Amino acid sequence: MRGIKLSDRQEKIIEIVKENEPITSEAIAKRLKLTRATLRPDLSILTMSGILDARPKVGYFYSGKSDINIFRDKIESIKVGEIKSLPTVVDEETSVYDAIVTLFIDDVGSIFVTSDGYLTGIISRKDLLKSAIGGVDIEKVPVAVIMSRMPNIVYLEEKESVLEAAVKIIEHEFDSLPIVEINTDSTEDKKFKVVGKISKTNITKLFVDLGIEN
Amino acid sequence: MRGIKLSDRQEKIIEIVKENEPITSEAIAKRLKLTRATLRPDLSILTMSGILDARPKVGYFYSGKSDINIFRDKIESIKVGEIKSLPTVVDEETSVYDAIVTLFIDDVGSIFVTSDGYLTGIISRKDLLKSAIGGVDIEKVPVAVIMSRMPNIVYLEEKESVLEAAVKIIEHEFDSLPIVEINTDSTEDKKFKVVGKISKTNITKLFVDLGIEN
Repeated sequence: MRGIKLSDRQEKIIEIVKENEPITSEAIAKRLKLTRATLRPDLSILTMSGILDARPKVGYFYSGKSDINIFRDKIESIKVGEIKSLPTVVDEETSVYDAIVTLFIDDVGSIFVTSDGYLTGIISRKDLLKSAIGGVDIEKVPVAVIMSRMPNIVYLEEKESVLEAAVKIIEHEFDSLPIVEINTDSTEDKKFKVVGKISKTNITKLFVDLGIEN
Repeated sequence: MRGIKLSDRQEKIIEIVKENEPITSEAIAKRLKLTRATLRPDLSILTMSGILDARPKVGYFYSGKSDINIFRDKIESIKVGEIKSLPTVVDEETSVYDAIVTLFIDDVGSIFVTSDGYLTGIISRKDLLKSAIGGVDIEKVPVAVIMSRMPNIVYLEEKESVLEAAVKIIEHEFDSLPIVEINTDSTEDKKFKVVGKISKTNITKLFVDLGIEN
């Protein structure tokens, strides 16, 4: 995908077609006080790029279809698996205090909680802060008591796009989401193995990378 | 700025020019086993878009210049003032406990600290959590004791782009940055008035907006 900066004349042609479609090249030329020959390369650019549609003996239509969102194409093609971070995971039995220590050691904002190796919850800095000032005995109480719990956890799979990840993060107001592999071997409920993490930090980093690449 | 998806033939032409520049349209046509007339619209698209340069009597050159980063253009044109959030601000004398309560009430991740109305520091959830478990008397100790302090604070002005904001957030590992107005009336040190906030949440929201617009 390449970007083309349209000339003022091409932008003018688009305006004329938008307001007068269908319109012949002759009529466009007349309005611009130019010859058809002069306009030919412009019309060719505009139709090849899909901005205008040309129908023989009828004239030009505004298609607009190719007002392609290049950014969307790009971020839909990048999968969360490509930009994921290592997740920080603790067992349900871990004390709130130990979870706080883990959070500082790993320098992360959220911790995923598992039982028997499968995802059961998430704890955020906010959850931990609430416990720390809320009279909870943080050395004794396990994280299972204070975490957000499945099935209220929003998760991602590696094949989802970073756009989907960003949408889920914003809609559900999480700082980060677990990337999981879904285990459906058993006849029981689905089980989720945590294989990564996507956070607002990953999205912001990608934003920077896309912005300064080239 | 519009996006144009190049055809396979156009991509092939680019490859040929890259490897053989300068090369005449005749020579390109020969390699592709096509007539010059057939290639004319393609070459016209490629030169008008700036991907190729044509020099009379010499031939085509690969310019590459117009491998324009449309996304960068876009996010350099959006200023932080356009997407800023309301900042949460407390005075230096506020107790750590009251700052934590404010953080929950405003549902934010960072709080800016002022003295006489001017920025003196930032407190993050992490700073607060550290105090809460660190034996600090959070009801008595003022935030001034635990905050990150000027001049170690990274700030933005409204005219800066969201790309610059994202770069600063990632480089300096802050979750959010204050947007300030710099007061240089006095002969003293510069003073900073907090007028907004940009966080990873703002950046992630913008990422979503750009991704789903159209």
